Amino acid sequence: MQAKKLGCHVVVLDPTPESPAGLIATDQIVGALDDPDRIRELVERCDVSTYDIEHIAVPVLEKLEGEGRRIYPAPRLLALVQDKLAQKQAFERLGLPTAEFMQVDEPSERTLADFGYPLVQKARRGGYDGRGVAVMRTNDQAGKMLKVPSILERAVDIDKEVAVIVARGRDGQCCAYPVVEMVFDPEANLLDTLLAPAQVDAEKAEQARGLAVATVDALEGIGVFGVEMFLAKDGQLLVNEIAPRPHNSGHYTIEACLTSQFEQHVRAILDLPLGSTRQHTPCAMVNLLGQPGGAGQPRLEGLREAMAIPGASIHLYGKAEVRPFRKMGHVTVLDESLESAREKALRARQLLRIKAKDEG
Amino acid sequence: MQAKKLGCHVVVLDPTPESPAGLIATDQIVGALDDPDRIRELVERCDVSTYDIEHIAVPVLEKLEGEGRRIYPAPRLLALVQDKLAQKQAFERLGLPTAEFMQVDEPSERTLADFGYPLVQKARRGGYDGRGVAVMRTNDQAGKMLKVPSILERAVDIDKEVAVIVARGRDGQCCAYPVVEMVFDPEANLLDTLLAPAQVDAEKAEQARGLAVATVDALEGIGVFGVEMFLAKDGQLLVNEIAPRPHNSGHYTIEACLTSQFEQHVRAILDLPLGSTRQHTPCAMVNLLGQPGGAGQPRLEGLREAMAIPGASIHLYGKAEVRPFRKMGHVTVLDESLESAREKALRARQLLRIKAKDEG
Repeated sequence: MQAKKLGCHVVVLDPTPESPAGLIATDQIVGALDDPDRIRELVERCDVSTYDIEHIAVPVLEKLEGEGRRIYPAPRLLALVQDKLAQKQAFERLGLPTAEFMQVDEPSERTLADFGYPLVQKARRGGYDGRGVAVMRTNDQAGKMLKVPSILERAVDIDKEVAVIVARGRDGQCCAYPVVEMVFDPEANLLDTLLAPAQVDAEKAEQARGLAVATVDALEGIGVFGVEMFLAKDGQLLVNEIAPRPHNSGHYTIEACLTSQFEQHVRAILDLPLGSTRQHTPCAMVNLLGQPGGAGQPRLEGLREAMAIPGASIHLYGKAEVRPFRKMGHVTVLDESLESAREKALRARQLLRIKAKDEG
Repeated sequence: MQAKKLGCHVVVLDPTPESPAGLIATDQIVGALDDPDRIRELVERCDVSTYDIEHIAVPVLEKLEGEGRRIYPAPRLLALVQDKLAQKQAFERLGLPTAEFMQVDEPSERTLADFGYPLVQKARRGGYDGRGVAVMRTNDQAGKMLKVPSILERAVDIDKEVAVIVARGRDGQCCAYPVVEMVFDPEANLLDTLLAPAQVDAEKAEQARGLAVATVDALEGIGVFGVEMFLAKDGQLLVNEIAPRPHNSGHYTIEACLTSQFEQHVRAILDLPLGSTRQHTPCAMVNLLGQPGGAGQPRLEGLREAMAIPGASIHLYGKAEVRPFRKMGHVTVLDESLESAREKALRARQLLRIKAKDEG
């Protein structure tokens, strides 16, 4: 939508015909995200290509980049985030503070015990939205162990999880959005409520923005990046992971900032000047996840009631199938205070229930 | 875009294949806006139909409405605004303050002189964006007279031209946006700069919002309406004209208000609760008009420079042909103060020049 607002023609590759993005784009190519022929077709039709999902075949992108095609962020960054080990090693190599970790190719109770509890095990590949992550506080929980090549990470004593959206242009210019605070749902390990700005002191906020910019700058990223960080109870800031794309923690920018992360991404990859990242109103954001139960065609309840909440912006993505915990949309609430925005956002989420049509 | 955000499927009727709206919609019917068959096809495919242009064949809409189709605002309001005489007579009948006027079927120097100068002659039909209007201050200017059925209007001694966007739901609930101030370009008789909120005192602002709501309520309009008013030097407020659709004077709501006029329109016609009309940041808006010269495929200059202005949102409509003074886009600037927003908006307009490709 933002690219079209700026007058671009947009072609989308998506496996689902009439996909949400495809319906808005000028044209859609129907194809799998690991189909080299369809990826080549897309990139060759475009002056500039980008992606907003991480599970894409990298080799063909690297080949196309080698042929002189403009693909941002660079395919090597996509490869980096597809392997959590490579990502952590890059942070280490670049001198970016990150939680202590260890590579483990064949996880066993013994390896875990040797590394020491509490720990977080992360599968190197295929994780997304909480899948591929196991938190184990003691040896008793070793049954949660994932039997795939992984990293083990020291569990950080976390005060808050924070994130910063950073944009970096083709000329290397960077800008950072405000620091936001993420409250996670322990059951689904998914973002529960996002508060913008984060309730941290000004000095810590500047530190977090600085670290986020340093991270994207060190990686020489081009485009918009979500940088997730831990603010430890001892005051340390640690980079957790990056997303080389507009990020869930930046959806609030659509309503609350002078330039949305999506427009900013388009500006960055098209070599246009970056826009102001100023936030004008406090806000809270909640994701709308598929209800527990079966999968199927989605049915939405509570839209009318939720829309009556003043300052609530409801985004429904139009996905054809709902599954438990699948992101189906989000709600951003702007209000005079962060606390009242949060209350309204939680109320909206309670009202808006998305489940499969044949579920009770 | 706003309807799709709320999960609607959208079909558009437009004479140009791959029109700006058509490219965003789920589907486009290519056809003239006065073709009864294509209009019927559109309305029969939709649960709710609306329009955002006024030059549409009304009889077929009235017929379809009679068959039980939901069309908002009601076709009778479209008929009303298509005839400036009928519109003025309605204001008079409903007791809404408006400038004194007279019907004139065959304008002559004599009729004009009898009515008295200064006056404004408005063609009853076909006017848009300054076409069909002649301002004559004395008899010497009678050469500007339009030789079509018209109304003559007493020229009001204007302090400011102001406007209010009003939404009225299917349940009759109304809400009003802030009063905005419009500065007109005397040459093109088109909006030059819009300032939101208007620089008027709080009491006058409330009066203007009240009059705007009273107007839409009296007309029993459903949807979003632009209500243009004169604030006379003697303090009187007069209704000038209404637009039964999202209006140019409400484009600023996209960035500056909690609910944009477009989302509000969708809410109103779908019988959903209306959203907050609160403005969070002062702003100024300028239209981007085709440069004087020839018509043709548009060429845009100055995009990079204009995008570097902090807080500027540039909207390009993607129209296939530029003509002198044709609206090709607009720029909204949010800033800490109205004055700095205005300066930046004027700078953006100076930078962004849209002309035909073959013009120098």
